[in-house]
Amino acid sequence: MIPFNKPYLSGNETKYIANAVKSGKISGNGIYTQKCHQFFQKKYGFNKCLLTTSCTDALEMAAILINIQAGDEVIVPAFTFVSTANAFVLRGAKIVFVDSKNNEPCFDEDKIEALITPKTKAIIPVHYAGIACNMGKIMDIAYRHNLFVIEDAAQAIDSFYTDKNGTQKRLGSIGHLATFSFHETKNITSGEGGMLVINDKQFEKRAEIIWEKGTNRSAYFKGEVNKYEWVDIGSSFLPSELIAAYLYAQLENIEKIQTKRKNSWDIYYKKLSALADKKRIQLPTIPKYASNNAHLFYIICNTSNEREKLIEFLKNNQIQSVFHYQTLANSFYYSNEKKNEVFANADKYSDCLLRLPLFYELKAKEVNSICDKIIEFYSK
Amino acid sequence: MIPFNKPYLSGNETKYIANAVKSGKISGNGIYTQKCHQFFQKKYGFNKCLLTTSCTDALEMAAILINIQAGDEVIVPAFTFVSTANAFVLRGAKIVFVDSKNNEPCFDEDKIEALITPKTKAIIPVHYAGIACNMGKIMDIAYRHNLFVIEDAAQAIDSFYTDKNGTQKRLGSIGHLATFSFHETKNITSGEGGMLVINDKQFEKRAEIIWEKGTNRSAYFKGEVNKYEWVDIGSSFLPSELIAAYLYAQLENIEKIQTKRKNSWDIYYKKLSALADKKRIQLPTIPKYASNNAHLFYIICNTSNEREKLIEFLKNNQIQSVFHYQTLANSFYYSNEKKNEVFANADKYSDCLLRLPLFYELKAKEVNSICDKIIEFYSK
Repeated sequence: MIPFNKPYLSGNETKYIANAVKSGKISGNGIYTQKCHQFFQKKYGFNKCLLTTSCTDALEMAAILINIQAGDEVIVPAFTFVSTANAFVLRGAKIVFVDSKNNEPCFDEDKIEALITPKTKAIIPVHYAGIACNMGKIMDIAYRHNLFVIEDAAQAIDSFYTDKNGTQKRLGSIGHLATFSFHETKNITSGEGGMLVINDKQFEKRAEIIWEKGTNRSAYFKGEVNKYEWVDIGSSFLPSELIAAYLYAQLENIEKIQTKRKNSWDIYYKKLSALADKKRIQLPTIPKYASNNAHLFYIICNTSNEREKLIEFLKNNQIQSVFHYQTLANSFYYSNEKKNEVFANADKYSDCLLRLPLFYELKAKEVNSICDKIIEFYSK
Repeated sequence: MIPFNKPYLSGNETKYIANAVKSGKISGNGIYTQKCHQFFQKKYGFNKCLLTTSCTDALEMAAILINIQAGDEVIVPAFTFVSTANAFVLRGAKIVFVDSKNNEPCFDEDKIEALITPKTKAIIPVHYAGIACNMGKIMDIAYRHNLFVIEDAAQAIDSFYTDKNGTQKRLGSIGHLATFSFHETKNITSGEGGMLVINDKQFEKRAEIIWEKGTNRSAYFKGEVNKYEWVDIGSSFLPSELIAAYLYAQLENIEKIQTKRKNSWDIYYKKLSALADKKRIQLPTIPKYASNNAHLFYIICNTSNEREKLIEFLKNNQIQSVFHYQTLANSFYYSNEKKNEVFANADKYSDCLLRLPLFYELKAKEVNSICDKIIEFYSK
């Protein structure tokens, strides 16, 4: 069986974990957490980073930082993971959904402005499959309407947006805040894990407090206060050093991982292009302003039924493939809120998008054989 | 330097982590998470358990499960960790504090009933130092006033309460819900980590949903629904398998760990009794209904100033000792809420309680030498 995913292991993960144990410090914010922060701050140029236990938790920190209150509206893609919405719902927000584009799962930036009301507080672009949203358009709208932008960059490590002047910007460095995931299926993983990026300096100090359970413990250890106490709401957002140690061993190998993933991605794309040319399937679209970080490779089938049959066919050929994201606006939870909204493109991706195996250890010949099987399926 | 704490390492932790990686599953709710759940459900007799990323997160799950709404009141010890309060504040609760007892940091159960109003929703007993609150009194009050009891058993693994009929009950098995911590300093650790215990069956199903980010993913994998979707609020409460694998290696050794810790605790108690007899310090009080799980050993100095000098003296003798818990009711965050409340006993523990080194590797002769130094300090 070719699995859909297999987490990467550099070999240093358990060594670093043993180092952390030896140091006597395995709770949060130890040596490896600092190393991970420095990696992203120095190599990626992010302003300030805080590891979290998940991308969900990073989004929850963001919701607290922008002071979401009951009734505030937050603009979110209809086709995304539940946490993009739930992190704000937990703080009392009303979610306003935006449909996907016709040729891309990413939400349609041109539909955002019509949804803004006096209650709108933030826009949450999700860089689906690590492929940038049109951040120029989004930041412009946000600036004109005085809104916060929180990039849900869960899938978008090592990916870029190029602005109209030709300047390439890292995803996660553009919005006021940004969130990353290190979940098992991500390019860089710690099983569960995430990170908040604080680009807007006004949030720096409070972010540390919220991260440390609503206490000024960070200021205490810097010698800025002589005891630490309860000063704000907050949670235990910081992960164990075990997680950070594991993650750091992965980060050290990011170039190697990315090269391998991109290679697999390119084989898929090239080999399946003939099917796409014949309109039997659709392949991913990468806009001119976006880079490809090879987070996931997907195809779009013509119908839900066809996708179901293809999954079964691949399974019978020892290949695991998966789909995801029930359109959030059609979900049980949101159904009470639902007016006569239609999210036709999101529904299409929900029904027809299929994710193919993509992981470090996947061999070129395996990618080729997966493609052969898909071609065989569509030749019938 | 004798550190205040050093996390225990059985030697199997990194082996189990490597196993998890080999299995291809390092996100949450894998084999080791199940093993940990089974340990507590089978050996400890807890009804249903769910590992969480921290005890804070377990408390937040509890707050969601009992449906805390803005303005609901929750009764909490004044002398406790910030998360006991903040988890409920995040859901909009008003915190009502109870002072400690004169001879015990645990909150005074006899002061609870006078604080109950029509808005009171829950009582949160904290088993400080792993020593049971008077659960008989608390459950009786809760029953008569129709309140939920959530045991904050962060420090209380492997500890017991004996009821008036002589029946010994595990801490964490008595309240409607209970929460545990596996933070670095705890008897059993995964650096950061926690667990929610669901004793009241009415919460079982929703707990799984909230744990899985507000989706019915658990029901999907059990084949109860044919796709999973957004059905509730929730978060990413489940920890990585890396955490669960580490934790399981510790749980396998719990008896060994407890024997060793209790041995150190007993030496401290016996050797420092002479000082307590002379009223130079106070030693921990263990009520008849409570057991001792040797989570922490503390002494009570006479004044804050004396404690400061003792910490310095011990530090100069290569011994690290620490204090904790600024009385929550005196904190910056709560100061707006504060009426003319006085928490004299909580303040005493906040000012005068000193925690001494206690960990698996601590040698008997080290405990003896720490005691000698304390005796030397008080002989001056």
